[in-house]
Amino acid sequence: MSSDVLRAVKEFARKELLDNAGQLDALAEAPLPLYEEFAGTGLMNWWLPKDDGGAGIGLEDSIDIVSELAYGDAGAAFTLFISVLGTSMVSLYGSDELKERHLKPMAGSAAFCATLGSEQAAGSELGNITTTATLQGSNYVVSGQKFFSTNSGFADFLVVVAKSAAEPSGYVAVVVPKDTPGVRIVKRWDMIGLRASATYQVTLEGCRVPATNALHGPGLRLLEIGLNASRILIATTAVGVARRIRDLSMEYGRTKRLGGAALTENAVFASKLGQMEMQIECMKSVCKAAAREYDAVMQSPDAATQFVRQGTLKSALAAKMLCGQIGWDIAGVGSEMFGGLGYTNEMLIGKLVRDMRYVSIVEGGDDVLRDLMFNRYVLPASKRA
Amino acid sequence: MSSDVLRAVKEFARKELLDNAGQLDALAEAPLPLYEEFAGTGLMNWWLPKDDGGAGIGLEDSIDIVSELAYGDAGAAFTLFISVLGTSMVSLYGSDELKERHLKPMAGSAAFCATLGSEQAAGSELGNITTTATLQGSNYVVSGQKFFSTNSGFADFLVVVAKSAAEPSGYVAVVVPKDTPGVRIVKRWDMIGLRASATYQVTLEGCRVPATNALHGPGLRLLEIGLNASRILIATTAVGVARRIRDLSMEYGRTKRLGGAALTENAVFASKLGQMEMQIECMKSVCKAAAREYDAVMQSPDAATQFVRQGTLKSALAAKMLCGQIGWDIAGVGSEMFGGLGYTNEMLIGKLVRDMRYVSIVEGGDDVLRDLMFNRYVLPASKRA
Amino acid sequence: MSSDVLRAVKEFARKELLDNAGQLDALAEAPLPLYEEFAGTGLMNWWLPKDDGGAGIGLEDSIDIVSELAYGDAGAAFTLFISVLGTSMVSLYGSDELKERHLKPMAGSAAFCATLGSEQAAGSELGNITTTATLQGSNYVVSGQKFFSTNSGFADFLVVVAKSAAEPSGYVAVVVPKDTPGVRIVKRWDMIGLRASATYQVTLEGCRVPATNALHGPGLRLLEIGLNASRILIATTAVGVARRIRDLSMEYGRTKRLGGAALTENAVFASKLGQMEMQIECMKSVCKAAAREYDAVMQSPDAATQFVRQGTLKSALAAKMLCGQIGWDIAGVGSEMFGGLGYTNEMLIGKLVRDMRYVSIVEGGDDVLRDLMFNRYVLPASKRA
Amino acid sequence: MSSDVLRAVKEFARKELLDNAGQLDALAEAPLPLYEEFAGTGLMNWWLPKDDGGAGIGLEDSIDIVSELAYGDAGAAFTLFISVLGTSMVSLYGSDELKERHLKPMAGSAAFCATLGSEQAAGSELGNITTTATLQGSNYVVSGQKFFSTNSGFADFLVVVAKSAAEPSGYVAVVVPKDTPGVRIVKRWDMIGLRASATYQVTLEGCRVPATNALHGPGLRLLEIGLNASRILIATTAVGVARRIRDLSMEYGRTKRLGGAALTENAVFASKLGQMEMQIECMKSVCKAAAREYDAVMQSPDAATQFVRQGTLKSALAAKMLCGQIGWDIAGVGSEMFGGLGYTNEMLIGKLVRDMRYVSIVEGGDDVLRDLMFNRYVLPASKRA
Repeated sequence: MSSDVLRAVKEFARKELLDNAGQLDALAEAPLPLYEEFAGTGLMNWWLPKDDGGAGIGLEDSIDIVSELAYGDAGAAFTLFISVLGTSMVSLYGSDELKERHLKPMAGSAAFCATLGSEQAAGSELGNITTTATLQGSNYVVSGQKFFSTNSGFADFLVVVAKSAAEPSGYVAVVVPKDTPGVRIVKRWDMIGLRASATYQVTLEGCRVPATNALHGPGLRLLEIGLNASRILIATTAVGVARRIRDLSMEYGRTKRLGGAALTENAVFASKLGQMEMQIECMKSVCKAAAREYDAVMQSPDAATQFVRQGTLKSALAAKMLCGQIGWDIAGVGSEMFGGLGYTNEMLIGKLVRDMRYVSIVEGGDDVLRDLMFNRYVLPASKRA
Repeated sequence: MSSDVLRAVKEFARKELLDNAGQLDALAEAPLPLYEEFAGTGLMNWWLPKDDGGAGIGLEDSIDIVSELAYGDAGAAFTLFISVLGTSMVSLYGSDELKERHLKPMAGSAAFCATLGSEQAAGSELGNITTTATLQGSNYVVSGQKFFSTNSGFADFLVVVAKSAAEPSGYVAVVVPKDTPGVRIVKRWDMIGLRASATYQVTLEGCRVPATNALHGPGLRLLEIGLNASRILIATTAVGVARRIRDLSMEYGRTKRLGGAALTENAVFASKLGQMEMQIECMKSVCKAAAREYDAVMQSPDAATQFVRQGTLKSALAAKMLCGQIGWDIAGVGSEMFGGLGYTNEMLIGKLVRDMRYVSIVEGGDDVLRDLMFNRYVLPASKRA
Repeated sequence: MSSDVLRAVKEFARKELLDNAGQLDALAEAPLPLYEEFAGTGLMNWWLPKDDGGAGIGLEDSIDIVSELAYGDAGAAFTLFISVLGTSMVSLYGSDELKERHLKPMAGSAAFCATLGSEQAAGSELGNITTTATLQGSNYVVSGQKFFSTNSGFADFLVVVAKSAAEPSGYVAVVVPKDTPGVRIVKRWDMIGLRASATYQVTLEGCRVPATNALHGPGLRLLEIGLNASRILIATTAVGVARRIRDLSMEYGRTKRLGGAALTENAVFASKLGQMEMQIECMKSVCKAAAREYDAVMQSPDAATQFVRQGTLKSALAAKMLCGQIGWDIAGVGSEMFGGLGYTNEMLIGKLVRDMRYVSIVEGGDDVLRDLMFNRYVLPASKRA
Repeated sequence: MSSDVLRAVKEFARKELLDNAGQLDALAEAPLPLYEEFAGTGLMNWWLPKDDGGAGIGLEDSIDIVSELAYGDAGAAFTLFISVLGTSMVSLYGSDELKERHLKPMAGSAAFCATLGSEQAAGSELGNITTTATLQGSNYVVSGQKFFSTNSGFADFLVVVAKSAAEPSGYVAVVVPKDTPGVRIVKRWDMIGLRASATYQVTLEGCRVPATNALHGPGLRLLEIGLNASRILIATTAVGVARRIRDLSMEYGRTKRLGGAALTENAVFASKLGQMEMQIECMKSVCKAAAREYDAVMQSPDAATQFVRQGTLKSALAAKMLCGQIGWDIAGVGSEMFGGLGYTNEMLIGKLVRDMRYVSIVEGGDDVLRDLMFNRYVLPASKRA
């Protein structure tokens, strides 16, 4: 990745995000115009493979991009990278035609894809989903209700995971263009943080798409594979938010006086910031390690097969859990850093605490991921670290 | 305390608070009409001594009252009890005339008092305050800027802590009726939680009051004494909020399914709730222990002298710190309890997390209190537990 | 409790425990001669009711006694108080004759009782015990294997919990004099801490005792009742050990130099000690609250019935869990307090960490207690705090 | 690194360490014969550069080696790798002659080097050391007292850091052969863990060595540079010990029954092990990231200069702190995993807890490292992550 890329991202963050918390936190109409601004950098959907017309930036480099975006605003970062969940599924398991039709137009332009996996009664147990994809002639007819889906209100296409009698695994992942009749946005959720992003409840009523819109492979497994990339980048938002908390703390510490000196001279303050820097460094290392493992699979010629065999990467689970946990710790320490002012909305810390919270919740809470980690990587002794 | 009292408080909470989070969290115009409703129970300012026309309910019983109020809404609880900070100072160190004029009318009626201690550059080091009370003839003239003061926008009188050359200690606490010329509300703070309460920035410009409005004793020490009661009750709000989180978790756990059974059957869920109940029980014990120590001093004939000697009670510091820390832990666990829904404002948990946060911040952050604890109760070996 | 009592306890601790860590930590032959010294104070088994010839000191006062003993040595404290588990069962549910024969001689003399509850395959699920007490004529014949039992090597009598077809509940608690044929000490455990105490594996082979040695009531429930007192005192040892860690830290801090001043002048050090003092204060409050609840039941005329109804007290569970958790936190902080020296056996901290560890393990690990707390005090909504 | 290397290390651990805790924990005479066994693998001092006759295995590969050794026994691991602290200083800053004389003979043979930095009154502030190296003609005469030095009792040579008027920086690091007259072992420390290793107090009385034994560069800085490698490997021992705790937990979980099933079927158990695996994965990633940064510097042609400029690597500090903190958390969870048995020396967990403790203490406690992190990597904004 050329250094220009990171420079452009930082410039975007500086201009559109850093001093814009009011608007970004307002749950303003989605998508925010600033995503068009980001598209102006040419970096929109930067991870799309060169074969699909994209910039082909790998996940390891994406860590730096997402860290800078989240430093500006975690909701904007999430909006900008979460399409990777669906596009990586299409890129690995979609037909050439699907990629031509749906991925190519996304490269560099303010286009989004949304993935519809979980349901109200199937949040942590995806096997319980009731949305169905029924083969009727050469079409799939998709019906069901999806509870949480980010970007679907303005996405160009949806990747829907559904039960399907026609698939050996019993589940299919199928591309449903957003304008397909029957796609209905029920509502946008009023989230407690990440409010520059938009997450929707969606109903699918007899949505008819060509059977060739189905991705090749077991539906639930493909979703799991897509989650590798998005979980690593969700983890990375914690890095960005934590860096922001650190810098705001240092700004405050330089002006605030304690015992006749700047707060930065105080040993307790120094200790907290030293701990925070250590934690940020470690979160970053852990995200990069996961990204490297992901990139290594992606660069192998049989990436698709290899991923079906591996499913959820241990390093991706680990990164999301650790960053969620450490990030929340940093948010808590940060929220006590600014005295009474930190309990007002005149400081950014209240928003940062709310933003940080999502890391441990979205795409699998820690209870779900610990259970997954245990079953996949502890019970089979050979998989242990 | 008769059981009627607690019944009335619970009934008030049920009617006015429990299902009213929307309004309570809206930073609506203060004071909310519901405080008039509370006055209807006759319990307003319940802690005022019988000598001052009050119900004479002790601090130990107040724990139960505040726990129930905070179960309903922490901001409403805070609004209703925080007057205790100023009234206890007046009650212990004010002249009979002051008590007659200012405390008596508060008993049972929707009246409030506000205390103005900290300043922008003197948040944790109260000795640095610059507000002055200057003796001019038989008057004190009070001038200065106070940063955070709860209820002052609608309080009947203010207890202002100021530097004063006329007092041996160099500081005085003086009663300033709210309608004194020169009292100016600069703004109401937009707090991140506790939004049913109202905290203000206040400027005092040459406020002239009779010198007899000064409380008898060293000003900073009297403030410290007043903080004993309020810190114990701030700690107690953590108990109420935690109980609410537990009950909402149980409600959710009874309907949510995991592995083919109710979530309440899940061992991890049970473990979290068992831990939470333990923590609530302990927070309550710690608040009660501090309240008992406080009540014991208050019931002694020389309470005023004894308190000047003791200043900050160790048990009050301990209660506030422990409840702030455990409360935040419970808030964190609670916020992961409800899956994705818990990240939306359709659940109450987001508000409860924001409300809980204040316990560790208001009236002395933990860094300040740890330092105070060390200097008062660890350095002098005889004061150690 | 007269102040003489505490003075005598402190004097004993000073003379026999404080500078005696070498011997106390050596797993020396049990019982150590110093228990005879303690008997010399007349306080041995201080909690025995006056009716049973004892000093009749309540559990609330016992908190102070045990805190002082554990300040000296947790293993010695444990040895001295753990008889309370069995004696309280006998006192509440034994016949007058049993009390006359077994409790009276214990008052003030170096006598011990041991309770044999858990078994190898029934550590956390006592219902699974396989030891049996079979009624043969007017005798109970007791057979089985008990895994962990403190003091049984030198106790005067054992309280054995066994399955019994003759009891409506299916379980009985029965007094077995130590010299009953068939009582066999299999081995003494090599514990990692608390090494002044002695815990044994015991086999009972056809031990024949009069049927009247059985306590009246459901055996498992009676054990649960006995555990109330012992768990509260186990929690209290954490207070004593934590106080010791604090004082050793202060001693070290006064001599150690950092940045040209004593370590006690360092803000990070002060912050740690302030936090520790807060924690000690809270642990103490929580132990006292549980003890008060216990004493209140004990002082009621129908204590025995009331306890059968209540079983495990919530406050006792809470005290043990909180003190175990906070105590371990303090041990961890303490073990980092002394630099490299703290990693050698020239400092006491290594021993104190090992001693502290038992609080969360003995008489129910936290997982077991959380589960118990959930089932007893969260599921039934009316039992919640 | 060929896979043979790791296979040999595992084989050594299996044969000499895994079932040998009794001897390893006994503070037996040092060095243990098993280090000769390790030398038999040809891997002794594996990190020595090829130029110095060594195997030239980099630090990243050393992570796997040390993790396997520490899985067997942390004390043995520490003994085997800690020479890296001194050898890396000599390798980077020593004359060719010094390397020829002292490093070459170490490659593959049971030879050790010890580094003598800290002193009793200069544990965390190395600038306060009082050991001196005085230039007398063409010799340095070294005198002073060193408090903690691992391996010095049987090392072939010592790297001593001393004040020196002859060096521009005021400090020098100088190689002192162990048999130099005046080198006196005062005592071996009785450590609480890591007891297969041996750490000594050493006095140097007029030890005369050629001035060319001095390393080129500022003494304190060179020590700091040497600590990069050793701190990363100390962090790595936490990985090994944690892996052992996990595996012992799983062994126990497979045989222990709870609720009629194996403990491994229990959700709380699974949750703990899932968390532990996550933590192990992250510790490993963090160690590898630091090792990669270290290797990158080492592989550059101007490694010596570059290291003098950088001094302490942020990633090395971060790895040591995170692994110490997470490792201690895992040790605590582990020590509650085995019920009462876990409190006896029949299980290994007591030893593992003691071993784990050193990670946060040796070569800089967390308070010291947080302060260092703050001053080096937070105060200068450009150094922040």
